[in-house]
Amino acid sequence: MTSHTVLSNTPVNELFTGLIRGHRASLSRAITVVESKRSPIRRQLLQLVNEHNVRIKRPTLRLGISGAPGAGKSTFIETFGMNLIEKYNKSVAVLAVDPSSAINGGSILADKTRMFHLSRHPKAFIRPSPSSGHMGGVTRTTSNAISLCESAGYDVIIIETVGVGQSEYEVSYLCDLMTLLVAPSGGDELQAIKKGIIEMANIIVVTKSDGDLVKHARKMSAEIKSATKFISYVKRPQVLRCSAVTGEGIDDVWTQIQQSVESEDKKLEKRREQRVKQLKIGLINEFFIELNRRIQLDKYENLLKIDETVVVEDIIAKIFDEDLRYGFKDVNSMIDN
Amino acid sequence: MTSHTVLSNTPVNELFTGLIRGHRASLSRAITVVESKRSPIRRQLLQLVNEHNVRIKRPTLRLGISGAPGAGKSTFIETFGMNLIEKYNKSVAVLAVDPSSAINGGSILADKTRMFHLSRHPKAFIRPSPSSGHMGGVTRTTSNAISLCESAGYDVIIIETVGVGQSEYEVSYLCDLMTLLVAPSGGDELQAIKKGIIEMANIIVVTKSDGDLVKHARKMSAEIKSATKFISYVKRPQVLRCSAVTGEGIDDVWTQIQQSVESEDKKLEKRREQRVKQLKIGLINEFFIELNRRIQLDKYENLLKIDETVVVEDIIAKIFDEDLRYGFKDVNSMIDN
Repeated sequence: MTSHTVLSNTPVNELFTGLIRGHRASLSRAITVVESKRSPIRRQLLQLVNEHNVRIKRPTLRLGISGAPGAGKSTFIETFGMNLIEKYNKSVAVLAVDPSSAINGGSILADKTRMFHLSRHPKAFIRPSPSSGHMGGVTRTTSNAISLCESAGYDVIIIETVGVGQSEYEVSYLCDLMTLLVAPSGGDELQAIKKGIIEMANIIVVTKSDGDLVKHARKMSAEIKSATKFISYVKRPQVLRCSAVTGEGIDDVWTQIQQSVESEDKKLEKRREQRVKQLKIGLINEFFIELNRRIQLDKYENLLKIDETVVVEDIIAKIFDEDLRYGFKDVNSMIDN
Repeated sequence: MTSHTVLSNTPVNELFTGLIRGHRASLSRAITVVESKRSPIRRQLLQLVNEHNVRIKRPTLRLGISGAPGAGKSTFIETFGMNLIEKYNKSVAVLAVDPSSAINGGSILADKTRMFHLSRHPKAFIRPSPSSGHMGGVTRTTSNAISLCESAGYDVIIIETVGVGQSEYEVSYLCDLMTLLVAPSGGDELQAIKKGIIEMANIIVVTKSDGDLVKHARKMSAEIKSATKFISYVKRPQVLRCSAVTGEGIDDVWTQIQQSVESEDKKLEKRREQRVKQLKIGLINEFFIELNRRIQLDKYENLLKIDETVVVEDIIAKIFDEDLRYGFKDVNSMIDN
């Protein structure tokens, strides 16, 4: 499986070559390929990309940006991303994970309109929500898309989520750092944010801190600071204010991100742990999907003959059986093949 | 597996014989046996019980009774259960599913004290919470305990839960009917009940409708009726009031239960569907537990060599592989053996 093939002139190799040369069109097509389970070159491409990234070991930053609708995510990412490019000479990829936008399908236009300058800049790449929305699908395709962006040479990968819960949990296993954006609209705003999401945040940024809203932003920031006192963190999140309009505080966010992110070694160790978690999540999700697809009531009349506890234990024992050809005893042995 | 062995004088057969003769001590021991995964006679016992219940097809009622702490569950079950025994000549088993009580371990005494008369009546059997508290463990052992109570000849099996969420979802796959008890303590009480639990209820009973609390109980009942208008049900739940002290309304609850429960045929069909759901839940839970037990980070350094999406797909494909000796292609073939 992990054989280092000499690249011949096949479609997958052409796509891969375009990708690692940083062609945006290739990156775009490559993401479409990995999003489609039916694509014949999907697995080969994933393998080539994985080998490449492991070999190159280029330092990148995977930054989760979460916030409820109205928190000003697109405007923030536009200003923050342009600042990274122009002031810090970084290239920036934005991957949007928005389960709801997959339904109306209008997100491509919307995202690109809201991020006017960023979407036109040669050092930026914006990819709207993947359209496959089944359980675990978001994580899987987003995880693959991050790898592709990294092999295409992007320095900062922003993963944008809508702050409704499930996506954030899944995305938190893909990011080095989670940033939560909050609009300064008073106490209700804070209550509406699920506690779990606040707990996941490494940095909390109150947006729209300009004009008449500055005093509200200050109040909001103070409220968040006192609210986070009652949550047990490994490390309590920093709370900042910024304005995407005036640009005030945007640099501070980047400074804080660089201070909050782990050292390169620790970051890579964390990513390895995240991959194991993703493996588990992936296995459980796919197992669940396959079970539902295959176990239909009408075919299981025979179930009545035997206690289901016994059936479950037999099946699980056999899946994990040491003697079973593809047993779980040593997943490594599969990976080694 | 399903061979109809002639019962010889082994420990499991002795226990089983005591059980189907309705000896409470045998029932109690049998539940302890199935709760312990290490018991050498557990699987045999489950098989014997399953065969017996399928053969006998005795009509029983599995009644879920849920409610937050303070809703008056024990007091209600005491009065309701005694009424079933004395007025309707039913035998009653009560199984408590209380994840929290498993922690303090004091529930045996507490349950039996609170259900003073019921716990002493020869036609009643009360079993407190199982002590194994892992994910899915409650459902598995409760499901087994229900089968045991039924083979011991009990007519009505009450499954008592604490109304905190997860248990109710799991228990709803074990019951013919879910009854939610609510204390008449004002609007806060109603808000504290999770929407999901109200959605699962077939019958909602406002308790403590006596003395000064009657007017509160009436108000509560009206509030619940209007609240349930905004929830989409297959069939909207009936809302009743009762008092375990005066006995008022207790008979009405039983009448309503009998009206709400499906016909015997439909009930058995529903139970068959529930068994398939339990099979799936059981498989997913056990798969999850085994994964966490076996996949340890330090052993999976090799993961870096290959994309985890590909690993997941390979493993899942192999588990469900048609050619695999114990594949999922036809679970029936396993059950038939």
